[in-house]
Amino acid sequence: MGDPAGIGPEVIAKAWARRETERLPPFVAVGDPRAIERVWRGPIARIETPGEAAAIFDGALPVMAVTDAVAKAQLYAIGFTHPGQTEFVAERCGVAAENAVMMLAGPTLRVVPVTTHVPLAAVRDLLTIDLVVNKARAAARGLTRNFAIERPRLAFAGFNPHAGEAGALGREEIEILMPAIHALQADGIDAVGPFAADTMFHARARGGYDVAICCYHDQALIPLKTLHFDEGVNMTLGLPIVRTSPDHGTAFDLAGTDRAEPGAMIAAIRLAAEAAAHRAETAA
Amino acid sequence: MGDPAGIGPEVIAKAWARRETERLPPFVAVGDPRAIERVWRGPIARIETPGEAAAIFDGALPVMAVTDAVAKAQLYAIGFTHPGQTEFVAERCGVAAENAVMMLAGPTLRVVPVTTHVPLAAVRDLLTIDLVVNKARAAARGLTRNFAIERPRLAFAGFNPHAGEAGALGREEIEILMPAIHALQADGIDAVGPFAADTMFHARARGGYDVAICCYHDQALIPLKTLHFDEGVNMTLGLPIVRTSPDHGTAFDLAGTDRAEPGAMIAAIRLAAEAAAHRAETAA
Repeated sequence: MGDPAGIGPEVIAKAWARRETERLPPFVAVGDPRAIERVWRGPIARIETPGEAAAIFDGALPVMAVTDAVAKAQLYAIGFTHPGQTEFVAERCGVAAENAVMMLAGPTLRVVPVTTHVPLAAVRDLLTIDLVVNKARAAARGLTRNFAIERPRLAFAGFNPHAGEAGALGREEIEILMPAIHALQADGIDAVGPFAADTMFHARARGGYDVAICCYHDQALIPLKTLHFDEGVNMTLGLPIVRTSPDHGTAFDLAGTDRAEPGAMIAAIRLAAEAAAHRAETAA
Repeated sequence: MGDPAGIGPEVIAKAWARRETERLPPFVAVGDPRAIERVWRGPIARIETPGEAAAIFDGALPVMAVTDAVAKAQLYAIGFTHPGQTEFVAERCGVAAENAVMMLAGPTLRVVPVTTHVPLAAVRDLLTIDLVVNKARAAARGLTRNFAIERPRLAFAGFNPHAGEAGALGREEIEILMPAIHALQADGIDAVGPFAADTMFHARARGGYDVAICCYHDQALIPLKTLHFDEGVNMTLGLPIVRTSPDHGTAFDLAGTDRAEPGAMIAAIRLAAEAAAHRAETAA
């Protein structure tokens, strides 16, 4: 349920309240039950293990009590020194950070930023052929595994304006992105670009690929949140587990006002269920 | 009409053909009349001066013949060494480049990139308090002069992800953007931010400002073209003249196919007419 002082408890409870109209599968809230009781008057059932959830889900929101798990002091106490949750979850799953990929998904667009929470001026030095290839490979595998897309189409955004205009506006396309794309193509991955980033995200362009691979945070997040601010899902690809979260923050200013919208949480739950189903089909 | 081998002649002719349904004011195509005749069978009237246009506009597209004015060799011959048309037009009007501002406008969003056609890695060194202040002042004046917005609301996009998170993800917000915003506020300009760029462009956020001031090309152009790819207008603010253009390229691959859409050209003509009317009102 995220930070107990944010809108997490409210949107989880509201998602459960819409379980029938949204046709949501059984899910479990993990965190302090009192955080939900403070903002919501519906039925709660405390459980010890996730397996108990399905049987009681129709009548009550299942909650596994973990007291204030995400209070910052406790995060630091368990060794939280990561730039973001993606890197943290990857380490806990025993996956190298460069093989875990943060993907943001909305109804009409999926994006992967190759670099994430770093100063923009540091991106140039972090962007290497190897990093681009590793992130793109993990993204392609993740789309096949979680979305049953047999041969995902990857479109790459240029680093510079107009994708560098053949070197006139920067050489990162020539020196980093094109070699990376050629290496991926040699592996049989459907990789195209680099394209001028500003021409990649309108409705017709979005139909041409399954995921846009972007060089830096805002290049990926601006189009995603411009189009799908209230329904964006953050999904970590490359993990042994399925991991999604609503792509919004704690919104402390909204907490306790009963005005938080559960749309992104509902989308995150649904996407996790779809991914789990695709994985089960593949394993079967 | 732009490059005679591009879609310019076609979209100009199609804009004229829709002059009644779109309620367009009289306008003049400037360029080689043969370029229009190659792609369009409607009536053309060759004129010598713009003043002749109004009288014949109902029955024919007025064209002032300038043979192949924008062929590249001729551009270089007249000294075209500018990064873009904005800088070129500014110089011809006797305006310093830093006081001319490229604004992109669509039906629900206006954006101004403080830096434009330069490599992304060069933006950090170009971005100074003075440049941000000068561009923002010119943008504010331009919105008042051309759009009759008495006190324009300017929202600034951060340079780094999450607008730097108070310095944790970069210090450009603290060292450049915030001092610039404070200087503008001291001048009585309604300047706010810097905001996390990815949270500025969804529908509710766009209602909070008249123009988004962005640090670099793609930060401004990605949201504008994601939302308004077929109707974006490029307008130069800070000039003694009104100057707009459709925010698309020559589209050589579409030229001659009769499939070019005149939406952006129509929007550019309409915006120019509105700006001219607002200027005339102010002068009156």
